[in-house]
Amino acid sequence: MAEVKTILLHRSVYADNDAEADSLRKYLKDKGVFVVNLMSSPGAGKTTTLITLINKIKDKVRVGVMEADIDSDVDAISIAKKTGVKSIQLHTGGMCHLDAGMTRTGLDSIDISDLDIVFLENVGNLVCPAEFDTGASLDVMILSIPEGDDKPLKYPLVFEKSDLVIINKIDAMKYFNFNLEKCTEYIKMRNKDATIIPISAKTGEGIDLVADYFLNKIKSFKEM
Amino acid sequence: MAEVKTILLHRSVYADNDAEADSLRKYLKDKGVFVVNLMSSPGAGKTTTLITLINKIKDKVRVGVMEADIDSDVDAISIAKKTGVKSIQLHTGGMCHLDAGMTRTGLDSIDISDLDIVFLENVGNLVCPAEFDTGASLDVMILSIPEGDDKPLKYPLVFEKSDLVIINKIDAMKYFNFNLEKCTEYIKMRNKDATIIPISAKTGEGIDLVADYFLNKIKSFKEM
Repeated sequence: MAEVKTILLHRSVYADNDAEADSLRKYLKDKGVFVVNLMSSPGAGKTTTLITLINKIKDKVRVGVMEADIDSDVDAISIAKKTGVKSIQLHTGGMCHLDAGMTRTGLDSIDISDLDIVFLENVGNLVCPAEFDTGASLDVMILSIPEGDDKPLKYPLVFEKSDLVIINKIDAMKYFNFNLEKCTEYIKMRNKDATIIPISAKTGEGIDLVADYFLNKIKSFKEM
Repeated sequence: MAEVKTILLHRSVYADNDAEADSLRKYLKDKGVFVVNLMSSPGAGKTTTLITLINKIKDKVRVGVMEADIDSDVDAISIAKKTGVKSIQLHTGGMCHLDAGMTRTGLDSIDISDLDIVFLENVGNLVCPAEFDTGASLDVMILSIPEGDDKPLKYPLVFEKSDLVIINKIDAMKYFNFNLEKCTEYIKMRNKDATIIPISAKTGEGIDLVADYFLNKIKSFKEM
């Protein structure tokens, strides 16, 4: 089992987070490391989706994971145990989001020199993480069926800034009153360019599409 | 259908939120109005639970509802339509929580002179709302089955400060890997005095217990 290190993050010293985020993105471009900022509500399935996805792509690309949490280590341990890839736990010390300075601290700790892609699992929260640019190359969010199809109306910003919206737990669709067509329409109102992929991290349905999406993104990123 | 007013809240002017919250609590005590701060993740079922609960108690006590949201009005309209009680919508303008100053602005707008209990539905978020005392008489949170039984480990503060933890969507228990016993144990680790009531807002299971809980709390509050 891969070793799991825990890093305690402190509020970033950078006054201008946007500038710091742009500088981090440029640094990662130079290094050829693709960083994905993954956001969702608590319990939407970020960790389970990552595990299923990583096991699909880890033979093709070198993957690392940074798990942010208020103060528990359960996710990084779970990722390490179930995928074997390099992962670290970031503790935000009560903070509700990650910013670019905190992301850079995490990346320095995990050592990106032997990685192609790093997934950054943000704090489970639809409000604050959307407000801070982490410096990632791509923003992704997971909405899960039990949360309801009206969430793009209520948490507009996170849908607006996500390049990919994964709709998880579609295996539970028949137990919840969730209208996929209506939800897609609400997402497109916020962000007409968003890619939307419905999946079940539990049954594996749709995960191939997500895997292809990321493999293509990494390919374009490296060729740019 | 009851009229729905929308109030745009501004960042509170009070430097000391705890002092402002204590002062608001004292004011509400004098007025005999019991205010409940309701917290949860997005989509855990705050609005549906409130609708089912209010329809059980509205003939016994005079109920008002303040719905906080980033910028949508769907919840207040839904409450007004499905319960007929007085409700207003509070817009936080992007902010992830309510503080005591914002709560007081909301209470001034709804007019509490003819109310026994006011439910304040906080922004859907397990991190920030837990950090700010709203001045409410009671803190309540809803955890829903699809979110998973490990949430007290990952979002400790909201469990620590909640007098009542409602576990919702128990009708979906068999479709999710949720261990109620383990979850209860995790909650008690954070807060040994918490009352825990499992319910299904959809089927109505357990709602009578929640109704009795609130009716008793209002009775003690008025007699104190």
